[in-house]
Amino acid sequence: MNAEIIAIGNEVVDGSVVNTNASYLSQELRRLGMRVRFHAAVPDDEALMLDAFGRAQGRSQLVLVTGGLGPTVDDFTLEVAAKFFGKGMTVHEPSLARIRGFFSKLGRAMTPNQERQALFPEGGTVLENPVGSASGFYFQNGAVHWAFFPGVPAEMRAMLAQSLAPILRALPGKGEFEFLKVLRCFGLPEGQMDDVLRSELKGRVDLLGAKLGFRVRFPTVDIRLYALGRDERQAEEKLQAAEAAVREKLGEYIFGTGEETLEAVVGRLLKERRLKVAVAESCTGGLLASSLTDVPGASEYFIEGVVSYSNEAKSDLLRVRRETLESFGAVSRETALEMASGIMLRSRADIGIGVTGIAGPSGGSEEKPVGTVHIAVTHPAGEWEHRYFFPFGRERFKAIVVAAALDRVRRILLALPQ
Amino acid sequence: MNAEIIAIGNEVVDGSVVNTNASYLSQELRRLGMRVRFHAAVPDDEALMLDAFGRAQGRSQLVLVTGGLGPTVDDFTLEVAAKFFGKGMTVHEPSLARIRGFFSKLGRAMTPNQERQALFPEGGTVLENPVGSASGFYFQNGAVHWAFFPGVPAEMRAMLAQSLAPILRALPGKGEFEFLKVLRCFGLPEGQMDDVLRSELKGRVDLLGAKLGFRVRFPTVDIRLYALGRDERQAEEKLQAAEAAVREKLGEYIFGTGEETLEAVVGRLLKERRLKVAVAESCTGGLLASSLTDVPGASEYFIEGVVSYSNEAKSDLLRVRRETLESFGAVSRETALEMASGIMLRSRADIGIGVTGIAGPSGGSEEKPVGTVHIAVTHPAGEWEHRYFFPFGRERFKAIVVAAALDRVRRILLALPQ
Repeated sequence: MNAEIIAIGNEVVDGSVVNTNASYLSQELRRLGMRVRFHAAVPDDEALMLDAFGRAQGRSQLVLVTGGLGPTVDDFTLEVAAKFFGKGMTVHEPSLARIRGFFSKLGRAMTPNQERQALFPEGGTVLENPVGSASGFYFQNGAVHWAFFPGVPAEMRAMLAQSLAPILRALPGKGEFEFLKVLRCFGLPEGQMDDVLRSELKGRVDLLGAKLGFRVRFPTVDIRLYALGRDERQAEEKLQAAEAAVREKLGEYIFGTGEETLEAVVGRLLKERRLKVAVAESCTGGLLASSLTDVPGASEYFIEGVVSYSNEAKSDLLRVRRETLESFGAVSRETALEMASGIMLRSRADIGIGVTGIAGPSGGSEEKPVGTVHIAVTHPAGEWEHRYFFPFGRERFKAIVVAAALDRVRRILLALPQ
Repeated sequence: MNAEIIAIGNEVVDGSVVNTNASYLSQELRRLGMRVRFHAAVPDDEALMLDAFGRAQGRSQLVLVTGGLGPTVDDFTLEVAAKFFGKGMTVHEPSLARIRGFFSKLGRAMTPNQERQALFPEGGTVLENPVGSASGFYFQNGAVHWAFFPGVPAEMRAMLAQSLAPILRALPGKGEFEFLKVLRCFGLPEGQMDDVLRSELKGRVDLLGAKLGFRVRFPTVDIRLYALGRDERQAEEKLQAAEAAVREKLGEYIFGTGEETLEAVVGRLLKERRLKVAVAESCTGGLLASSLTDVPGASEYFIEGVVSYSNEAKSDLLRVRRETLESFGAVSRETALEMASGIMLRSRADIGIGVTGIAGPSGGSEEKPVGTVHIAVTHPAGEWEHRYFFPFGRERFKAIVVAAALDRVRRILLALPQ
């Protein structure tokens, strides 16, 4: 069933409020077998509301309207809806009693405005609001199901779960639901990934009954597999086959699924292998340590970090030799390796990570331009070093260097004999 | 002039992404003399896109389309737009050269996909992207102005400011513009701030011809002052008077204006006073050092950071005394102070910052619950320590602790005799 979401309110359209309701409802509706195909936001303006309602009636089977149900004069969504449905407004006695009770409990007189909240279009069902004063409303107009919620996110969420979800679950003929599987990737630029996906994978994945999309969440990329099914099990079969086809081509770049982060995956691998890590970083300025410690329970495997901006810090804290700094420079393979082994030995960690580079905007040279970075990993079983070039501006540079370092450790941990 | 904003992308309509672009653009367009009356979001579907374009052409004078300009196969907004405008697609040579240059700098081959990003509808103007690879596009279709931006917020924002704003400012017949002044605050909870603003300030600011709003950007809060004027100077007078009224009440909480960050303000104060800083942190895991070093040129005043998760790191690297750790615990006033003075002395910095606390979710006790944190600052002229309680969950805890530490340093620097 195709659905659409209409937000009513000047505050949405003028940008004072971010319309988080739309994304929330889209995700929840998918789980209820609905496929959201359109979002709209219109101001508190009868003509624009009627226009949006008319369009929705013509193209969707479910229309979810948020906002404009409160007690104030610019809350008139239901009056416009009644007009649109060709219905009059009528008092809903239980709502009136509830609002009266609420005000007498507060010891306040009820204003005529508050009474308006007990008026609903004739026919249809009042949806209780377990959190606030404005009730919602459900109406079937021809073949189209309409639901009206307040715009306050907490109220809208509570009403969806408590009042509307049971109605939607019981609707016949919803056919197939869409299910989603997300494969999280790092290390291949979006364009190249798309080439592989299109030229080599898309046809195969389509054949398997799934669809392929992807989304950049810099510095990572999500491969998104969608499949339709009458239930999760039916969709899951298609998704698993499609996932296997994708992994065959891009497996090494896939670090996780769903909402997993690189730092969580590295944390899990370290815990499983009972290894401890320590980091020495310059150009990332602490962001590598911060990412590693974003994971709850990181103290089990993270010992310490050093942010060695100055050469003195590199030699004092990390025992990087002065000759190394002088001969090869602070941004060099040699310095990165000595930083990694320095912090590993100092802290008695199993794994050391050393990162040194030039974040910019200044400090670059012809030989070592802004964006150059060396990442080193040391472990008693070996040492690894890679040079990268990420000329993406300071903020994005830091983010991608941290991801590259974490991915490096991930790959090394997977390759180490256990 | 009436404007509308159309977001293109399955990821918006299916709820994977919150459409923050729409609210940002609505606010910015208001400042350019445009009145946004409609938001829509449609999936990557030609028929739905054409339908939305047709509606927009019929009711708005400016249509801003975001999304679908990248190198991948599901990025075809401009092809659909060309069809809608009745135009062919043509290669824009400067864009092609720019993309080529970008790839040759990276030392990578350019794929045919990347070349697609140099194709634009005939007629119209290519809008440069100062941040990413996909250029934008401006086209006048009959009486309606159309602009196309990538969906990536940072790119969209940069392109609006740099490429589209001059075009829109030059359009005739827009009447008064809205001007905005942002005062950035930290240290007063939103609710309390609202109380002060509403009960004590709102009337006065209204009288001065400005309007007052505010926006939470956790962990900071922006006070937003708006004024109408035919030009900037006319509005600026009202804004200055309103700003003075706000500063009288809330001055100490205001750390900056516009887009200034706490770390940039602290960096500026350190530079002006020729002071150098070093940090020792545990519960923030490197985020304090990372924030300080987010500012270009931070190496002028940032010497080093230590992320001392383990007690060994605290005693080895920071010379925190074992008796201190044993008697008072790792999360204590005494440990925070020894961490701050330890890193200050070790690195020969002028200012040391020590942060120790419990980020959670585990590790709390009745006496020191999750969310407890001690922040210490040391300087030859004195030492300062504060205990806070931020029970906000790990991620928000780290962010607010870093802001609290930076704000602490800001206030100390302002109070130090120069």
